[in-house]
Amino acid sequence: MSKIGEFHFVSESYLLDFRGRVTIPMMGNYLLHASSTHAEQRGFGFNAMASQGCAWVLSRMVIEMKSYPTMLQPFSITTWVEDANKLFTSRCFAIRNAEGEAMGYCRTLWAAIDLESRKPTDLARLDNNLHSFIVDEPCPIEKPGKIQAAEKDTEGEPYKVRYSDLDVNGHFNSIKYIEHLLDMFDLSMFADKEVSRFEIAYMAEGKYGMEMFLHKKEIDPLRYVTSICDKDGKAICRAEITWK
Amino acid sequence: MSKIGEFHFVSESYLLDFRGRVTIPMMGNYLLHASSTHAEQRGFGFNAMASQGCAWVLSRMVIEMKSYPTMLQPFSITTWVEDANKLFTSRCFAIRNAEGEAMGYCRTLWAAIDLESRKPTDLARLDNNLHSFIVDEPCPIEKPGKIQAAEKDTEGEPYKVRYSDLDVNGHFNSIKYIEHLLDMFDLSMFADKEVSRFEIAYMAEGKYGMEMFLHKKEIDPLRYVTSICDKDGKAICRAEITWK
Repeated sequence: MSKIGEFHFVSESYLLDFRGRVTIPMMGNYLLHASSTHAEQRGFGFNAMASQGCAWVLSRMVIEMKSYPTMLQPFSITTWVEDANKLFTSRCFAIRNAEGEAMGYCRTLWAAIDLESRKPTDLARLDNNLHSFIVDEPCPIEKPGKIQAAEKDTEGEPYKVRYSDLDVNGHFNSIKYIEHLLDMFDLSMFADKEVSRFEIAYMAEGKYGMEMFLHKKEIDPLRYVTSICDKDGKAICRAEITWK
Repeated sequence: MSKIGEFHFVSESYLLDFRGRVTIPMMGNYLLHASSTHAEQRGFGFNAMASQGCAWVLSRMVIEMKSYPTMLQPFSITTWVEDANKLFTSRCFAIRNAEGEAMGYCRTLWAAIDLESRKPTDLARLDNNLHSFIVDEPCPIEKPGKIQAAEKDTEGEPYKVRYSDLDVNGHFNSIKYIEHLLDMFDLSMFADKEVSRFEIAYMAEGKYGMEMFLHKKEIDPLRYVTSICDKDGKAICRAEITWK
């Protein structure tokens, strides 16, 4: 089986935002679909991990978009494993239009956790072929870095975790975080500009009913840091959003 | 081209709820996907309508589920046009597992609106073959009916329409309504029970920044009526939810 997986999509009208473009959270869904299918087909997906009492946990994600798929536009996502060390594996993605031109790229970092202890597992101990699928393929966007703590200088907007926020493990869904963070921006931002880079660091697990606070801080008019904190002020996730 | 369209899906881990089942809103997305693809392939989809200055608007939807797809379960959705009169067309769906057994059914009612005036269009005036695709196929669930006004006897929970709630027309997304209505129930309901019938009536258009109120009223311990109203108390949508 090829090291690089290629998946085809057509953006659908009822999944677009008010400007008729695929949103960052929806693009996140497409990327996770490509990711989980690629892993499943190669023997290190959800089922293979579950049989070893483990699960993949998304730790970092950065998406850079030059252009967004619009109404009924076919596009492809290719994805591959870039690297794996003791605790993390990095997976990259390229998003291309029907002509094969790059619309964007994505980098993700994953840890494997033990489903009982919820602690990270040594990737080398997993019984799978993950390492044999590592491939050297260019992904021309900057790797995820450190994100400033937006919560330090801002007052948070309260939010309570709801049923629709939960994923299959009963924790806050990775894509839902992105949705809530982007919802802090006024509609005029989305009307005039678009997100050119969205970088998120997942730091702790959000649970049902948790009282959270959403923070947003302007670095410059086109660059913001945001975070979601628990009621004690501990960051659950942080994100940096660059507009163009 | 066949009158009945058949579409295949595999439920994906990152789209399931905390019990590992496809949610009603997610099932709504799959149904809308089947619906829009079926219509597009037969010449009366989004593009064909847009070229005539019109758009389909979902007016009623009722979903009955006997069982829900779980992790990585393949399932199919078949969909067909049941009828069309001057102002509405009804479309039905059957959801089946890999063995062809019915997991659920859905009935929808659609109007066509003029994109300029936002008023309903006479379906007979549309230049398409919609009527030639009408087929007599059983859909053994009760048609959508009148839903009691939950807002009459209850106090609403305030909600402000956000970026992620908007659809491509800049209005409140049909599926997002369902998400917000179900989020009014405590997690224990979803843990102990499941939704057996979800019926929604879309009554007016929600817009960005609108101050809304979410209402929920118990009819009996397994049956609730809910609604979303604007700040003047006018219902934007109403839904009846039956649990088992």
